Amino acid sequence: MNARRRSADRTETIMQTALDLALEVGYAKLSMEAIAGRAGVGKDTIYRRWPSKGLLFLDSLLSLNQRALDYPDTGDVLADLRQQIHAAVDLLATPPWGPLYRALVGEAQHNPAVAAGLNDRFIQPQADKTVARLRAAQTKGQVSPDFDLELAMAVLSGPLYFQLLITQEPLTHEYVNRILDALFAGLDPRPRP
Amino acid sequence: MNARRRSADRTETIMQTALDLALEVGYAKLSMEAIAGRAGVGKDTIYRRWPSKGLLFLDSLLSLNQRALDYPDTGDVLADLRQQIHAAVDLLATPPWGPLYRALVGEAQHNPAVAAGLNDRFIQPQADKTVARLRAAQTKGQVSPDFDLELAMAVLSGPLYFQLLITQEPLTHEYVNRILDALFAGLDPRPRP
Repeated sequence: MNARRRSADRTETIMQTALDLALEVGYAKLSMEAIAGRAGVGKDTIYRRWPSKGLLFLDSLLSLNQRALDYPDTGDVLADLRQQIHAAVDLLATPPWGPLYRALVGEAQHNPAVAAGLNDRFIQPQADKTVARLRAAQTKGQVSPDFDLELAMAVLSGPLYFQLLITQEPLTHEYVNRILDALFAGLDPRPRP
Repeated sequence: MNARRRSADRTETIMQTALDLALEVGYAKLSMEAIAGRAGVGKDTIYRRWPSKGLLFLDSLLSLNQRALDYPDTGDVLADLRQQIHAAVDLLATPPWGPLYRALVGEAQHNPAVAAGLNDRFIQPQADKTVARLRAAQTKGQVSPDFDLELAMAVLSGPLYFQLLITQEPLTHEYVNRILDALFAGLDPRPRP
């Protein structure tokens, strides 16, 4: 086993330990000391790679996202959005990871490095995929040519973050479906054809 | 000056002191000790009314909302929404209070009492007003009869919370206007009349 391989294994072990411990004690009580101790590495080893608990936990949580939350393209844009958003919600907005993702977003409110990491490593790539999927649909006439694609991520995921972070009510598939229907319908009274 | 009046004055003083100090040191470094000291009251006096810093700061921030963020009803629902949301954004999403409101929402991610207080004292009343204004517009045919009014608050304010809490980009009037236009347009390609 070469050095690069050993380092990758160690990274994996540290992130898995962070996830295990977070499930046991919650985000607030998670500590770099406890992670180092259980992972069998020195604290310095962790701090060399992750300057803070928030950044380590961000990486750990994103490492769960194996399928990279890609959008399918079956030709039915509403069905594809529904499927992708259900997967995102199942991963990050429901137990066991939902409460920990909420805590991480909470940390991003006073820790600019965590906020930047969250955007660079997760939000922006997801936003790019969302725009690409909607642009393909717009080209085929399945999305209104008037819809401002730049706002796609805010409009589609904003109501879900509102449910996750503000009302803190359960984020079910049914809720996602209702939001999507409302966003497709729009507020304007539709002229009768 | 009777006892009730004195108590109201003291409440006012404590909340004003919490706001002043928060502007000076930020939310993270705000302490009940420092507030008590500067307000010239005992810590017990504060804790009797507010069991935590988060709840005191929530009340203090909401006390700024003198105009209660009511919706005008000029007959033009889009203009009315725009005006009310601009006022909300000016109060809670831009400096000086924006960063402190962000911190408070951050606190609500690990403090259930703050989350409940935020919903009971601010979000739910605003949601009720939003639904009432949109229901009046729906009755007049200015909002699509298909639009699910129960989702109004999530759909209208979700994209703004996304900007405030996730991307943390400036929340300008222009951004609000673009979001409103996108929500009125909807994603569905509109049939030509």
